[in-house]
Amino acid sequence: MPSASYDERLDRLLTATARVFAQKGYHATSMRDLSRSSGLSLAGMYHYVSGKEELLYLIQRGCFERVVAGAETAMAGWTVPVDRLRAFIRHHVTFFAAHMSEMKVLSHEADSVTGERGAEIRGLKRRYANLLGDTIAGASDRDARLAAFGLFGMMNWIYTWYRPGGRVTPAKLADTFTEIFLHGVVAPDPARPPVRGGPVG
Amino acid sequence: MPSASYDERLDRLLTATARVFAQKGYHATSMRDLSRSSGLSLAGMYHYVSGKEELLYLIQRGCFERVVAGAETAMAGWTVPVDRLRAFIRHHVTFFAAHMSEMKVLSHEADSVTGERGAEIRGLKRRYANLLGDTIAGASDRDARLAAFGLFGMMNWIYTWYRPGGRVTPAKLADTFTEIFLHGVVAPDPARPPVRGGPVG
Repeated sequence: MPSASYDERLDRLLTATARVFAQKGYHATSMRDLSRSSGLSLAGMYHYVSGKEELLYLIQRGCFERVVAGAETAMAGWTVPVDRLRAFIRHHVTFFAAHMSEMKVLSHEADSVTGERGAEIRGLKRRYANLLGDTIAGASDRDARLAAFGLFGMMNWIYTWYRPGGRVTPAKLADTFTEIFLHGVVAPDPARPPVRGGPVG
Repeated sequence: MPSASYDERLDRLLTATARVFAQKGYHATSMRDLSRSSGLSLAGMYHYVSGKEELLYLIQRGCFERVVAGAETAMAGWTVPVDRLRAFIRHHVTFFAAHMSEMKVLSHEADSVTGERGAEIRGLKRRYANLLGDTIAGASDRDARLAAFGLFGMMNWIYTWYRPGGRVTPAKLADTFTEIFLHGVVAPDPARPPVRGGPVG
């Protein structure tokens, strides 16, 4: 079994690597760039991984495993479907607001991990998407698949514009997106029912 | 003045280029790759542009100019704020459902156009974002800036999952996102007012 400090050093290497992949792009990054940014020698890096594709795989696997486990824990305390949905959104937004580089890498390099490892990542991603889809289906009459894609978009797009440490805290961001996704930006006007889609709930 | 057929040939070159940038990534693409995919000789391509950065700039400028002008036209027929918002969403989703490669390139290569050209693109993008922000502010009491980022995320994320030609038409997609953004996925429960954010409208 690897020692705790082996895992910690690997975690630090993955964090530094995600930052470089996010800034420079995965394909333009060399193991030499990663050695410079992590402070490990090239030989030291090859002690942990076989190359940059394994680093990308470990970043993606680690993120999806943690975000799935974290969401399950966050929702476990709630039984009302809409509360479970709130808990999912709160967890996703705060997790990725603290992992913006990883979020950009997951988004831009979704297809860069190939073969069995790619299939494993897609499986984790599907499990996470299904968790959200099922949670929405429990709380809403909308098309849960389309709604889940819409909500993931709203939340994941933050890697393009959100600046942690500014006026908008992750908690405020999560609350705003939760209220928009649950209840929309305008009160329904009973005199003008929606043309399509129909009322819900 | 360039003839119409010069413009048409340049448009075809930009469309072919956007497809390659979206598949291969801007940085990994060479002018030789673009020559192969466009059917133009290298010399023929240099008749239109000075290199691949100018192609990226022209793709981004063309997209933002067309999507701003199209949104203004789509909203021009409507006066009620919420109808203007519906028109904006419908236009954005249908435009980008027909330009998925361009959408991926705008998203992944937002920082790859530099200098004065980069500033021009950022200006067009700001103008478009302000148009949506102002439209939301006219229709809703929510934080219009956060709501606009959320809505752009919901709509722009489609480049990662949406497959044109499938079960979900662009019009159906636009209608679903419109209803979610305007009214949410669950009916408000008057017995349980939202903990934060407050009721709107």
